[in-house]
Amino acid sequence: MTEPIQRQATASEESLIRIFTIPEAPDSTLSIIEQNLSQNLAGFLRNSIVALEKPLWQIERDFQAHQIPEMPEFVSDYAEQLMQKLVAHSVHTASPSFIGHMTSALPYFVLPLSKMMVGLNQNLVKIETSKAFTPMERQVLGMMHHLVYGEADGFYKKWMHSANHSLGAFCSGGTVANITALWIARNRLLKADGEFRGIAREGLFRAMQHYNYQGLAILVSERGHYSLGKAADILGIGRDALIAIKTDANNKIDVTELANTMAELTARNIRVMAVVGVAGTTETGNVDPLHQLADLAEQYQCHFHVDAAWGGATLFSERYRHLLAGIERADSVTIDAHKQMYVPMGAGMVVFKHPSDAHAIAHHAEYILRKGSKDLGSQTLEGSRPGMAMLVHACLQIIGSAGYQILIDRSLEKARYFAKLIMDNSDFELITEPELCILTYRYVPASVQKAMAKANPAQLQRFNELLNGMTKFIQKRQREEGKSFVSRTRLTPAKYQRQETIVFRVVLANPLTTEQILHDVLLEQDHIAQLDKEFYPKLLQLAKKLAA
Amino acid sequence: MTEPIQRQATASEESLIRIFTIPEAPDSTLSIIEQNLSQNLAGFLRNSIVALEKPLWQIERDFQAHQIPEMPEFVSDYAEQLMQKLVAHSVHTASPSFIGHMTSALPYFVLPLSKMMVGLNQNLVKIETSKAFTPMERQVLGMMHHLVYGEADGFYKKWMHSANHSLGAFCSGGTVANITALWIARNRLLKADGEFRGIAREGLFRAMQHYNYQGLAILVSERGHYSLGKAADILGIGRDALIAIKTDANNKIDVTELANTMAELTARNIRVMAVVGVAGTTETGNVDPLHQLADLAEQYQCHFHVDAAWGGATLFSERYRHLLAGIERADSVTIDAHKQMYVPMGAGMVVFKHPSDAHAIAHHAEYILRKGSKDLGSQTLEGSRPGMAMLVHACLQIIGSAGYQILIDRSLEKARYFAKLIMDNSDFELITEPELCILTYRYVPASVQKAMAKANPAQLQRFNELLNGMTKFIQKRQREEGKSFVSRTRLTPAKYQRQETIVFRVVLANPLTTEQILHDVLLEQDHIAQLDKEFYPKLLQLAKKLAA
Repeated sequence: MTEPIQRQATASEESLIRIFTIPEAPDSTLSIIEQNLSQNLAGFLRNSIVALEKPLWQIERDFQAHQIPEMPEFVSDYAEQLMQKLVAHSVHTASPSFIGHMTSALPYFVLPLSKMMVGLNQNLVKIETSKAFTPMERQVLGMMHHLVYGEADGFYKKWMHSANHSLGAFCSGGTVANITALWIARNRLLKADGEFRGIAREGLFRAMQHYNYQGLAILVSERGHYSLGKAADILGIGRDALIAIKTDANNKIDVTELANTMAELTARNIRVMAVVGVAGTTETGNVDPLHQLADLAEQYQCHFHVDAAWGGATLFSERYRHLLAGIERADSVTIDAHKQMYVPMGAGMVVFKHPSDAHAIAHHAEYILRKGSKDLGSQTLEGSRPGMAMLVHACLQIIGSAGYQILIDRSLEKARYFAKLIMDNSDFELITEPELCILTYRYVPASVQKAMAKANPAQLQRFNELLNGMTKFIQKRQREEGKSFVSRTRLTPAKYQRQETIVFRVVLANPLTTEQILHDVLLEQDHIAQLDKEFYPKLLQLAKKLAA
Repeated sequence: MTEPIQRQATASEESLIRIFTIPEAPDSTLSIIEQNLSQNLAGFLRNSIVALEKPLWQIERDFQAHQIPEMPEFVSDYAEQLMQKLVAHSVHTASPSFIGHMTSALPYFVLPLSKMMVGLNQNLVKIETSKAFTPMERQVLGMMHHLVYGEADGFYKKWMHSANHSLGAFCSGGTVANITALWIARNRLLKADGEFRGIAREGLFRAMQHYNYQGLAILVSERGHYSLGKAADILGIGRDALIAIKTDANNKIDVTELANTMAELTARNIRVMAVVGVAGTTETGNVDPLHQLADLAEQYQCHFHVDAAWGGATLFSERYRHLLAGIERADSVTIDAHKQMYVPMGAGMVVFKHPSDAHAIAHHAEYILRKGSKDLGSQTLEGSRPGMAMLVHACLQIIGSAGYQILIDRSLEKARYFAKLIMDNSDFELITEPELCILTYRYVPASVQKAMAKANPAQLQRFNELLNGMTKFIQKRQREEGKSFVSRTRLTPAKYQRQETIVFRVVLANPLTTEQILHDVLLEQDHIAQLDKEFYPKLLQLAKKLAA
């Protein structure tokens, strides 16, 4: 903001009414404020990842007041403060060098459309407060359903707009999507039966007594998303009943172990409620062998859910969609549009293979969700919610499947390029190869790599401890420098005897990330490593000792 | 849109990269599109409630395609289509004559701020993707906590930014807020104890066996929101265990009945898990006697939750906050900012009296939610989610508590004015008086009222049936006319021996709704009643017969 624009800011009825009135002329004060905001935002967005690096405790100083201020503030003053205290210390998630998380760049056209969406303030819970937004959302879910399941035309004609059916649920994100899917799985398994009126009415305790199970279980690989644990907790199944099956060297679920566990649980009268396949793990981006999971789910007659929150968009690519083969056999699939579909935060979806599955969680309320109406709220976890589906609709039309294919292909190939770059650099070690567009690696000086090749298990462990310290140091310092950002996580790679190994994690989904940026990231990490006065010298020393 | 603005829309890598690049100059194509959109939107917003009234099946025709279009569309073409097919058939929720639902007008300044929020695309699950947005959201929750509980300064200094504590949870809406509160209640009740590691880990079945309860129960008045049934279902407690206590003539929970039920359940070894007080029922806007509920909750040592999704903002008013007396004794309180706080859709909150209560639902994940970090995602139901708290922050500062007080007072007084208008009109009948700013009424011609006063129960029932038909007719036709909108619901008023009675439901929260509009609504309804060729003539006939 260059100059504050003065508007009356008194607590009078008149001035309050004015702020609810949309200005007539486009050159009003509002437009000037907006232009200033936009320009500053664009300026901020071009510069760096965090405009001003400041420790969190210092930022917190600006957010100490716990009393709601009594007197109104000028819009212009507030906007100026906002730029200095909030925007300047937010994270530039759209930066081409922010390659550490799944929050990506946005196509520019979503900005004016978002403003329109907010201005319309539709409430998708009910047709009376959303009108055309309801069929529009149903269409988006239908299109995503078709992307996953590819049913024939007649299927969509019959079900897409059918009042008492749904091809999916739109929600705020993948967590709610996964909970919704497992909620349906639980309720369908423990359905009404004879005297028993079903879990939805009588609860889990009675259901278990009626069906005479010793317990329930949800099976997923150890790389499953933490939202599944949340789901197991909230649904009353318990986190211990979410059974983590170990993964193979490629971070894919060990199918033999899964089959054995299913057999063993069944023998103990513990009912397997769901098998969850991961299509793009958050940490390494790998995809489980979905066909084999589908076979097992069929064999044990349990729900098969695929968490494709991240990886689902790969289906747009003719070249790579085979990586997700078998997804079309899932009963439900989670896909986040705010990940690889480039929609702003708050756009999750779950699609259901069978249009009537959501009956298991249906509910009605007289004043708002009448039976037989097409109100979306009767088959979703959330109640009132915004018209975010519009932004997915816009991206599907404006980018098109051909456009998405190019974006996905580009991401996956960029990841392969970066993997090669890492492998060709003698001071770096690729930990997990990219199957989709996520990879992990770490900095390991060439001399250390040589020494490690000859080290005994105890020495190897010591190397790994020191490397973990250094990786952490590099990642933190790199973030603080504000030029680029990679995240870090802890893996237990097979090749290091499952020792805890801290690694850099990179997500290559931003279309603006260039090969040059990837070169620079490695250069910067190499440079930062030399600044580590704790672990780096010890590593070199240890390597020297072993070489001697 | 006047003219389509041509932009390249081919599926080439180059054109795709261009749509992710923020234009440098403010007079770019993007700005022109945005200006067109804004002007059309403003034009649309001024005109009517639904720009073009069209039956849903006709609107659905424009949303039939289930295949994602292959080729990209021009932004300008898409925007034009959007205006015609979606915006023109959405609902003008901000219209001063849209007084039927809780979706209200917005202060204009939230529009540019929303665009900024979307552009920043922060992810509040984690500090690494939100930075200053995390302390900002914590501050908003602290301020709302203070509004409800009014703890001393030291309390907020200690807890507001404490890594392992939270004063509340921000979420997409009241439903998730209520589920979160009851999830905490369930997990705290069935906590770890001796060998038992707690419900979160071992699940509900084991918990019930360990604690040796026959069942659980959640008690709320029959006016409780449908999200509580959803919560009972999803949490595995079962909808039947959500016990609806009847209300008195004022739609407030019958405390004697509640006390009796609690005693009876306890005697049957059914553990009362939570008592839920409603502060502003969705249908009639009434507030339960919260102090008495708090007493009972204390007596039975159960969780006391208050659903103030709608009514919570009344706390801003020095004049009316006494209506919610006792709310400060609740363990948790739901307040939706997208209702009477005039924030756009998608801003729900639940505040917790005790900063450590959310431990009961805490979860961690290595790559994203490290223990001891201040990441917000570790104590919320949702995972990734947008920075909506910014819009609440903005409204709190720009409107101020003094501004909110005026808005709330004005709404409540407008409701009282409208109630008087209805009572003074001999052809209308007020069904529920406004305690906050919601009231219900119906059209009953004077002659019918006279006849009903003398009718026997059977005749009264016949009158009510006919009146129900007419009320439905009027409400539907009024909505279709597109000038104004009231909703309808079904009540069972004490004065009609609990017979089902369909009523108009009015929510008077839009600051732009004038007294003139209220006069006109009655005039219009009177006029529409005369068009009813089915129920209206029969009513008059029946009244005439009884008068004779």
